[in-house]
Amino acid sequence: MHSLPALGEIFDSKLKAYKLPEEPANLYDPLRYILSIGGKRIRPKLVLAAYNLYKEDVENAFEAAMVVEFFHNFSLLHDDIMDDADMRRGKPSVHIKYDINAAILSGDVMLIYAYKFLEKYVDHTQLLYSLTTKTSIEVCEGQRYDMDYETRDIVTIDEYIRMIELKTSVLIGGALKMGSIIGDANANDQAHLYEFGRNIGIAFQIQDDLLDTFGTESLVGKKIGGDIRQKKKTYLYLKSLELLSQSQADRLRQLYAVGGGPISEEQVSEITSLFNAAHVDVHCDELKLVYQQLAFSHLDAVSVDSEKKSVLRTFAEDLLGRDS
Amino acid sequence: MHSLPALGEIFDSKLKAYKLPEEPANLYDPLRYILSIGGKRIRPKLVLAAYNLYKEDVENAFEAAMVVEFFHNFSLLHDDIMDDADMRRGKPSVHIKYDINAAILSGDVMLIYAYKFLEKYVDHTQLLYSLTTKTSIEVCEGQRYDMDYETRDIVTIDEYIRMIELKTSVLIGGALKMGSIIGDANANDQAHLYEFGRNIGIAFQIQDDLLDTFGTESLVGKKIGGDIRQKKKTYLYLKSLELLSQSQADRLRQLYAVGGGPISEEQVSEITSLFNAAHVDVHCDELKLVYQQLAFSHLDAVSVDSEKKSVLRTFAEDLLGRDS
Repeated sequence: MHSLPALGEIFDSKLKAYKLPEEPANLYDPLRYILSIGGKRIRPKLVLAAYNLYKEDVENAFEAAMVVEFFHNFSLLHDDIMDDADMRRGKPSVHIKYDINAAILSGDVMLIYAYKFLEKYVDHTQLLYSLTTKTSIEVCEGQRYDMDYETRDIVTIDEYIRMIELKTSVLIGGALKMGSIIGDANANDQAHLYEFGRNIGIAFQIQDDLLDTFGTESLVGKKIGGDIRQKKKTYLYLKSLELLSQSQADRLRQLYAVGGGPISEEQVSEITSLFNAAHVDVHCDELKLVYQQLAFSHLDAVSVDSEKKSVLRTFAEDLLGRDS
Repeated sequence: MHSLPALGEIFDSKLKAYKLPEEPANLYDPLRYILSIGGKRIRPKLVLAAYNLYKEDVENAFEAAMVVEFFHNFSLLHDDIMDDADMRRGKPSVHIKYDINAAILSGDVMLIYAYKFLEKYVDHTQLLYSLTTKTSIEVCEGQRYDMDYETRDIVTIDEYIRMIELKTSVLIGGALKMGSIIGDANANDQAHLYEFGRNIGIAFQIQDDLLDTFGTESLVGKKIGGDIRQKKKTYLYLKSLELLSQSQADRLRQLYAVGGGPISEEQVSEITSLFNAAHVDVHCDELKLVYQQLAFSHLDAVSVDSEKKSVLRTFAEDLLGRDS
C-alpha cells in the first residue's frame, strides 16, 4: 500500500522516463512543455490509488494514469485558448509560448494519445474505452455550458452544479473508476469509487469558488476576486441572489449584467460586501459538506479494508480541509 | 453487392436519421451544420464498400462509416481554423458561422464521437481502436508537417510525399481497412485494402495538385492557382526545381521565398510558365501512375472475386481519371 505522495513519485519518475516522438517537433514539443511545468497530478495519482486498493504492482496502472493526465492536459490546452488564459501554472500557456494553431493541433494529438495509452489493457478494453469516451464527452459539454453561462443573465443553481459536475467532477470520478477497473474491482466498487470522486469533485469546486473570493492570496496562489471580475455565475453569486433582499439582489444582478461592461475594483468590493451580507460562505460550507458526506458514504461502501481506503480518505480531507 | 452511389444513399439516409444530443445546442449545432453541408462522403462510402466485399448487410457497417466521417469532419473544423479558410464546401466554415471557440470545442467532441461509434463492434474492439488511434495521430502529424513546410524554404520530394501520405492517404487506407475488419476479412486482405487506399490517396493528391494549377476552374470548382498563391511546396514546385535550368530554378525559388511577401497575379503566370517549361505535368502523371499501379496491384491481391472488387476499381478509376 502506497501513500499518495509515494504514488506521485512513482508517476513522476515513470513520466520522466516516457518518451514522446521527437518529430514533428512542433507537434510534440508543446506536449513536453505542458507536462514539464507540472501541476499537482491529482488525477493520475487517483488512478494509481484506486488500483492500489486491489493490486500492489502500481506500475501496471501507469498507462491508465497517463490516459487521465493526457486528457486533462489536452483540455487545458484548448480551454486556455477559449478562456483567453495567458498563464498556466505560473508559466505562459501553450498558445502564448507557441501559437494558437500549435495549441489546437497539439491538444488534438494529446487527446488521441490518451486513447493510445488504453491499448495496454487488453483485458478490460471495452469498459475502459467507453468510460474514457463518456467522460470526455461530458467534460466538453461542461466547458460548453460554462462558456454559455457567461453570456446568459439567468442561470439556476441546478444548472451551475450540473456544469461543474461535467467540467470537473466526472474526470475525478473517472480516474478512480479507471484504476479500479484495471485492479479487477467488482462493478459495485467501481460505481462507489466513481461516486466518491464525483462528489468530492463537486465539493472541491464549491470550496474553490469560495476561496476565489474569500481566500488568502498567498495561500490560494492567484489573485483574489478573479471569478467576480469575470462575472462568473458561481454558487456564491447564485445563492446570494436567493438570500439577499429584493433591492440588494437587484443591485447584484445589475452588477453582473452581461451587457454591463467590465467590473471595477470598487465594484469587486461592493459585490464581496453583498456576498458577506448574504452570509453565503456559511451556505457554501453547508453545500460542500453535503457533497463531502455523500462522497464518504460511497467510500465507506467500497468492499476493501478501511486501512487501505485511508489513502483516499486522507486525500479528500486534505483537499477539502485546505485554505489554499 | 452495392454500387458506390447506392452505398452513398444508404449512408446518407442513415445519417439523416441519426440524432445527436439536442443540448448543449452550442456544442452540437456546429456538428449538425458541418454534416448538413455535405461533401462527397468518399471515406464513409469506402468503409461500406470494403465491408460489402465480405458481407451483404452493409447497414451493420454504418457506425464504422460514421467513425471515419466524424473524424474527417473534426479535422476539417480544426484545419479550417489553422489554415484560416473561411469557406468549406461553398459555405462559411464553422469558425466563421459560429466562432473559433465553437469550432475548437465542437471539433473536440466530434473527434470523441468518432471513438464512440466504435463501441458497437465488440468483436473487433482492439483492432478497430488501435487503427483509429494510429490513423488519427498520423493525420495530426501530416497537418503539422504541412504547416511547418509553409515556413521552410527547403523541402524534399520525399518529405512532401510523406506529408500528403499522412495528411490524406492514411485515412483513405484506414477507411478501407476498417470496413474489412468488421467484415471479418483475413489480415492479408486488411493489409492489401489499406495499401490500396493509401496509394490511391497519394495518387489522388498528386492529381489534385496538378489540377490546382492546370485544371479548368468550372470543373475543379475552385479558383485555379490557389496553391501557387499560398506558395505551397507541392510536387509541381519541388519537381520543377529539379528539372529547370539553374537560373530558372533560382528564379522559382526566389518567387517562393518564405520572407518574400505575397505573390502577384503576374507572378502566378510566371510560375505557371516555369512549371510548363519544366514539363512537370508529364512527371506528375508519371508519378501518379506509379502509385495508381501500386494501388491496383494491392487490390488484385485481395482474396475476393474480381466482380465484387469492381466497385473499388471503378471508384479509383473515376477518382483518378477525373479532370475536375
